[in-house]
Amino acid sequence: MFLRVAKRSLLLTCALPSFIMTNNSAVNPSEVGWQFVPQYYTFVNKHPNRLHCFYNKSSTFIHGTEGEDGKPCFGQQEIHNKITSIGFQDCKVFIHSVDAQSSANGGIIIQVIGEMSNKGEAWRKFVQTFFLAEQPNGYFVLNDIFRFLKEESVDEACPR
Amino acid sequence: MFLRVAKRSLLLTCALPSFIMTNNSAVNPSEVGWQFVPQYYTFVNKHPNRLHCFYNKSSTFIHGTEGEDGKPCFGQQEIHNKITSIGFQDCKVFIHSVDAQSSANGGIIIQVIGEMSNKGEAWRKFVQTFFLAEQPNGYFVLNDIFRFLKEESVDEACPR
Repeated sequence: MFLRVAKRSLLLTCALPSFIMTNNSAVNPSEVGWQFVPQYYTFVNKHPNRLHCFYNKSSTFIHGTEGEDGKPCFGQQEIHNKITSIGFQDCKVFIHSVDAQSSANGGIIIQVIGEMSNKGEAWRKFVQTFFLAEQPNGYFVLNDIFRFLKEESVDEACPR
Repeated sequence: MFLRVAKRSLLLTCALPSFIMTNNSAVNPSEVGWQFVPQYYTFVNKHPNRLHCFYNKSSTFIHGTEGEDGKPCFGQQEIHNKITSIGFQDCKVFIHSVDAQSSANGGIIIQVIGEMSNKGEAWRKFVQTFFLAEQPNGYFVLNDIFRFLKEESVDEACPR
């Protein structure tokens, strides 16, 4: 599902592949969701140093684990710094489900459930909610809420 | 966490308790989230037949299980019919995490992770995303995406 992107010399620009630039007339939210989600996680895998390009100065981002406190980041620079601190390295994502609905102001709300393995470490289940806001020729990520799921319930489910 | 509500004679009206009717000036999204979430699940528990009152004709609602197809419902009547078909009876909810962010058009996006037990049946983990859109004196639920989480990963996590 990974996307071929432009040459390294472009990696520090914020040009995104053109196929996110959909024609927003008669938008099908599921199509936008299924177009956005593979593209987003391809950037997580291949170009985490460009992932901030999905966001802009009005974006809010939180990345943490279920039930743990976390400070949201505001704007592209803070989000880039946070993404850098997460340290994505060959981060693999397996998608379990994608729900997308039309929302306020021509935006699209997306809930993703999946599993992630960063740096070859164990797979961890996560849920991520995006709000894609319209911009000329496409969308940007206005809201991003990422939570790894805790697995306490796993132990309870194991035969003793 | 359950809320005391007005007398039974009001159950078929769409009057909601006044404390959802916040003053939206200088909104703190976390406060709105923590005000909304207990109120919403209290209605799931005590007044599922009034739960549609959180929605309006522009709302979209989906309720299902991770990875399974589901048809979204549009508008208060379809949502009410779907809620009725779910058959909430003394449905208990335990909240693990609530994330809320300011979003488009003065709205608030909320991601909830929790566990639900309906009719005394087994607790099931779920994730639910809401978009609260502004309306005079408060908010309504413009988007609602509910997914029970599958527990395959549970078995994998069990010692063999």
